[in-house]
Amino acid sequence: MAIAYPHFFVSEKAKNLMVTPTTTSAHPTLTPTPTTLSQDELKKIAAYKAVEFVESGMVVGLGTGSTAKHAVDKIAELLNLGKLNNIVGIPTSSITHEQAVSLGIPLSDLNKHPIVDIAIDGADEVDPQMNLVKGRGGSLLREKMVEAASKKFIVIVDESKLVSHLGGTGLAMPVEIVPFCWKFTLKRLEMLFIEAGCVGKLRVVGKSGEPYVTDNGNYIIDLFFKGDMGNLKEASDAILSLAGVVEHGMFIDMANTVIVAGKLGVSITNK
Amino acid sequence: MAIAYPHFFVSEKAKNLMVTPTTTSAHPTLTPTPTTLSQDELKKIAAYKAVEFVESGMVVGLGTGSTAKHAVDKIAELLNLGKLNNIVGIPTSSITHEQAVSLGIPLSDLNKHPIVDIAIDGADEVDPQMNLVKGRGGSLLREKMVEAASKKFIVIVDESKLVSHLGGTGLAMPVEIVPFCWKFTLKRLEMLFIEAGCVGKLRVVGKSGEPYVTDNGNYIIDLFFKGDMGNLKEASDAILSLAGVVEHGMFIDMANTVIVAGKLGVSITNK
Repeated sequence: MAIAYPHFFVSEKAKNLMVTPTTTSAHPTLTPTPTTLSQDELKKIAAYKAVEFVESGMVVGLGTGSTAKHAVDKIAELLNLGKLNNIVGIPTSSITHEQAVSLGIPLSDLNKHPIVDIAIDGADEVDPQMNLVKGRGGSLLREKMVEAASKKFIVIVDESKLVSHLGGTGLAMPVEIVPFCWKFTLKRLEMLFIEAGCVGKLRVVGKSGEPYVTDNGNYIIDLFFKGDMGNLKEASDAILSLAGVVEHGMFIDMANTVIVAGKLGVSITNK
Repeated sequence: MAIAYPHFFVSEKAKNLMVTPTTTSAHPTLTPTPTTLSQDELKKIAAYKAVEFVESGMVVGLGTGSTAKHAVDKIAELLNLGKLNNIVGIPTSSITHEQAVSLGIPLSDLNKHPIVDIAIDGADEVDPQMNLVKGRGGSLLREKMVEAASKKFIVIVDESKLVSHLGGTGLAMPVEIVPFCWKFTLKRLEMLFIEAGCVGKLRVVGKSGEPYVTDNGNYIIDLFFKGDMGNLKEASDAILSLAGVVEHGMFIDMANTVIVAGKLGVSITNK
């Protein structure tokens, strides 16, 4: 069965791996009727598919956000059913830590488990080379630490996250910075990408105007691009070279597998 | 008068600029007797020489550490004498902030003064290309922010700080990291420079064993090298690319002028 997918994203290899709705055992409610699936249901499909890669005895990086949450739920369910055992979870945020504790998933950290077998996490944007923007949920630094330590990093998204180039949604690319002189750092970030029409905004909490503070006590500057930011590796090095910057939300050349749930099915692309 | 200086450091231009003890008006106690000057006196000579570059009306980056302290003292003295006026100081640490406040130097920050006319600061190591190691005093991030914003950055050292390559003293090259999973980040730093025999140590406070905490709430890993760390730009990018790293103590291609006080005189090298 041929499934229509954004041509820029799905490789030949991926097409061979694509599963039709009827073979998606993890989510038997999936049907080929395009209009019946909500975005959250698509997120769940991708998440459950990723959990099929988890095996007993693995150290598992637990992602953060509305899609990754479904994966954590599913892992807990399989542990409780005895279908998985001897799992050690490495949470990527304090929120995920709380979720996992409440579900009874045994946890550890990178100090004790510096090698992670598999990490499963969502993304805000995925480009055709499987580069990502992450961190709109505010946990980019811990996510990057855990996922960089992972032998296999599976990204789970619904099809709305696919972009032709990073920044392409017009939504934020987050940068974690130290609070000290944040206005100055914001200006320097904008200047780096002045040709791409970059505008930076301090992330605030709700309508309070108070800065959002990360798990590491830092602030987030959200960068918005009108144009392409060019070579991603060069952009990454330039951002990280600014004193005051702690980390950014581009995950370049880190994902091994991307699972995309769309209204017509699930695609799995491996690198 | 020919002055013996480490040949790898002093350029022809610098030799022309070298001042003999008798012309160093800023420090009339300087004599050509090699054995009479302590290291602290040499630091003072370099610091006072640098302050000669400060003009009324300037925004001045105020460094941190035992050498920079003398420059801050001197600026305050000249302000009090009315020989300088309308100076705005940008301190590079909370310690320097306190020193400047106690001396009555008007202060601001990079948010309000994003362009600094001149910054004066010490260094732990200076290589022949005027690259630096800084931050053994623990303030590398704020120093780097201020000095990167400066039109002219003057480094002041005694001659013991001159090295053939960074890391060459065998002393620490500091890296500021987030506290989260610091042991993991330490291991990853060591692995980056495994061929240079790199060993990392968490900086602690005195004999307490408690981690030293920076002005930004982070930890410091001190890296010690047995061999050369290779291309500095590549080393810098590799360190900064590690999630968990906030900043490192290499100041590459940032210094405009290096003032070295040695037992036989003062040299000034411009880039």
